[in-house]
Amino acid sequence: MEIPPPLVLKRPLFVPIKTLMGPGPSNCSQRVLSALSNPVIGHLHSECLQIMNEIKEGIKYIFQTSNDATMCISGSGHSGLEAALCNLIEEGDVVLVACIGLWGHRAADIAKRYGGDVRLVETTLGHSLTINEIELAFKYNQPKIFFTVQGDSSTGVLQSNLKDIGKICRRYNCLFIVDTIASLGGTDFFMDEWFVDVAFTGSQKTLGAPPGLTPISLNMRAIDCINARKTKVKVYYFDILLIGQYWNCFNMPTIYHHTISATLLYGLREALAQVCAEGLKAFIQRHQQCSYRLQQGLKDLGLEMFVKNANERLPTITTIKVPFGIDWRKVIEYAMRKYSMEISGGLGPTVGNVFRIGLMGENATLERADLILNIFREAIESSKLDNNEKSKI
Amino acid sequence: MEIPPPLVLKRPLFVPIKTLMGPGPSNCSQRVLSALSNPVIGHLHSECLQIMNEIKEGIKYIFQTSNDATMCISGSGHSGLEAALCNLIEEGDVVLVACIGLWGHRAADIAKRYGGDVRLVETTLGHSLTINEIELAFKYNQPKIFFTVQGDSSTGVLQSNLKDIGKICRRYNCLFIVDTIASLGGTDFFMDEWFVDVAFTGSQKTLGAPPGLTPISLNMRAIDCINARKTKVKVYYFDILLIGQYWNCFNMPTIYHHTISATLLYGLREALAQVCAEGLKAFIQRHQQCSYRLQQGLKDLGLEMFVKNANERLPTITTIKVPFGIDWRKVIEYAMRKYSMEISGGLGPTVGNVFRIGLMGENATLERADLILNIFREAIESSKLDNNEKSKI
Repeated sequence: MEIPPPLVLKRPLFVPIKTLMGPGPSNCSQRVLSALSNPVIGHLHSECLQIMNEIKEGIKYIFQTSNDATMCISGSGHSGLEAALCNLIEEGDVVLVACIGLWGHRAADIAKRYGGDVRLVETTLGHSLTINEIELAFKYNQPKIFFTVQGDSSTGVLQSNLKDIGKICRRYNCLFIVDTIASLGGTDFFMDEWFVDVAFTGSQKTLGAPPGLTPISLNMRAIDCINARKTKVKVYYFDILLIGQYWNCFNMPTIYHHTISATLLYGLREALAQVCAEGLKAFIQRHQQCSYRLQQGLKDLGLEMFVKNANERLPTITTIKVPFGIDWRKVIEYAMRKYSMEISGGLGPTVGNVFRIGLMGENATLERADLILNIFREAIESSKLDNNEKSKI
Repeated sequence: MEIPPPLVLKRPLFVPIKTLMGPGPSNCSQRVLSALSNPVIGHLHSECLQIMNEIKEGIKYIFQTSNDATMCISGSGHSGLEAALCNLIEEGDVVLVACIGLWGHRAADIAKRYGGDVRLVETTLGHSLTINEIELAFKYNQPKIFFTVQGDSSTGVLQSNLKDIGKICRRYNCLFIVDTIASLGGTDFFMDEWFVDVAFTGSQKTLGAPPGLTPISLNMRAIDCINARKTKVKVYYFDILLIGQYWNCFNMPTIYHHTISATLLYGLREALAQVCAEGLKAFIQRHQQCSYRLQQGLKDLGLEMFVKNANERLPTITTIKVPFGIDWRKVIEYAMRKYSMEISGGLGPTVGNVFRIGLMGENATLERADLILNIFREAIESSKLDNNEKSKI
């Protein structure tokens, strides 16, 4: 053996305990963590398929849908985004993408890779798109597919008019994809009632499961579109018709599509069970109450919200303008070093401009909201002191 | 809320304890299982990046490579296969695929989705390809890319002449992709010495980690080919240049590509640490000794191996011909029902023709080899009795 075993793997695994109040992942509950150490079982064993069925029912509940084609992509949230796009897009299709932060641009990048003729509908950073702006873009572009996030984690903006967008999509005979990764559980989402054709979400945000499985649901309009494709879906791994057969979505014999991670199924199953036990309505209210408490506290600290209008603010992830003269990196480092507390900086277009605080899942409690306010205040004060020290020199 | 919370999620999670002696996943060690319940940390936290670095070193060791571009795809083994192909293939490229079972055909399906001009080199089921057969196919097809599995889990065939194939690939200026999912840890593999340009493996076979992360490594020839692409890699999620930046492979600032599953990193890190502690040579020998013991025992039972030549047999997964008159389903069901022991049937071209027994990772011990022999014998006897009962009626 020419390549020797690495010395680093002689050391024990080191995992710190942190409070994750960035944009996700959030902390898992003890119930979820305990479930993860259950023994692995086979990806086609009846008990595994049973857990997948249970997860499917849980996803239908959180999306408020009765879609049969409800399953998980075996990958992170990005894989859900890519699966949604690559199954629907064929070369030359007009794809209209709403941009209220980084994620629209990411979706546009991906859609182009699949030959989509991508058009953007954008607005000023920190605002959501009005229904007029969107309808104008529909008139002009006549898209086959419309994509939007419900909430953009980079800006903290909530796109709250999905119900009206759904109606426009039907009028224009357009498929409606909604990315609810950052929003689900923090705000209402009614997939069927709002005419959403494809929705996906993250496991590691409000749900509090580990990353690695991405719930996705498609209605019959979307499935019909996939069935009518002239070309095979590019990506075998994201091929919804095959994954759906594995997840028993189409009343056909179960096939082996890939080896799903039983470990991650256990975690997601328990996370969904916890949401069910609490009830979706109470779950959402809890997130909203915490967000309100946080926003009030931030106001009391004299800090300015990045999203001006309160009704355009994502309840799960709050964006705060970096005050003039403050080094955002120092604030974040202070909270992490002293309290093992994650506060996040901006992402994409907001890097350097905002702090991002997430109150999701286990961390969506009033106590945690107060805790982060105290730590955040202290971290900012400490960074100001640093500045004063420097100015003396 | 129109869709009510599902009743199934009120029940506790049920996970049976099984001995997984099919083609994978294998059982995880207690060390791996315990690691999985560590708290989740952020995908860009320094401790997470450190664990990724440790995993990278472990992968270099098991592949025997010094490639900088060594990382994981965040998905099952299939995602590694697809990542390898979609990064290298551009529209019209000639891709030569070796078929010694299902996996060549799967690779061919995927390569075609990316516009590959796929040519197959096949042989009789149960045999590997000779170096002459392969060289002839090179002469005739002049491929840009050659793909083979080192071992095919559907047939139990080992393709043992990779070293010679590597030389042919260099002579024909062809990129050499090897799928070692079913073989690594059960037989020698020297990525650098054998001129393998891209290799990937499974986490859930000999390594004994849960499924969900797929180690992959690319040398500079492969990276140069990707850098020289005329078109973007189709799949953002599998884009090696971006994933490699996240995994700190290119000496560039770390980027956020996707949210990796910290949970799965913990498991894989510990699994690799266990291989390092045992030593790769001893690890492989253990698998080979167990395979030998199993094969001897099967012979003593009067059973026939599916792969005639002993040196073409994959040590990790052994394929046994279903004896005449035996209902393979009953044998498998018996072992599972009475002993919670997984023995597997065939896959793809071998369905109905073979049993597949895997002795991998934790299950690669002489005791387990004897155990499965006893159970297998009993299950076959029981199935014969069933037949006799029926013939009396």
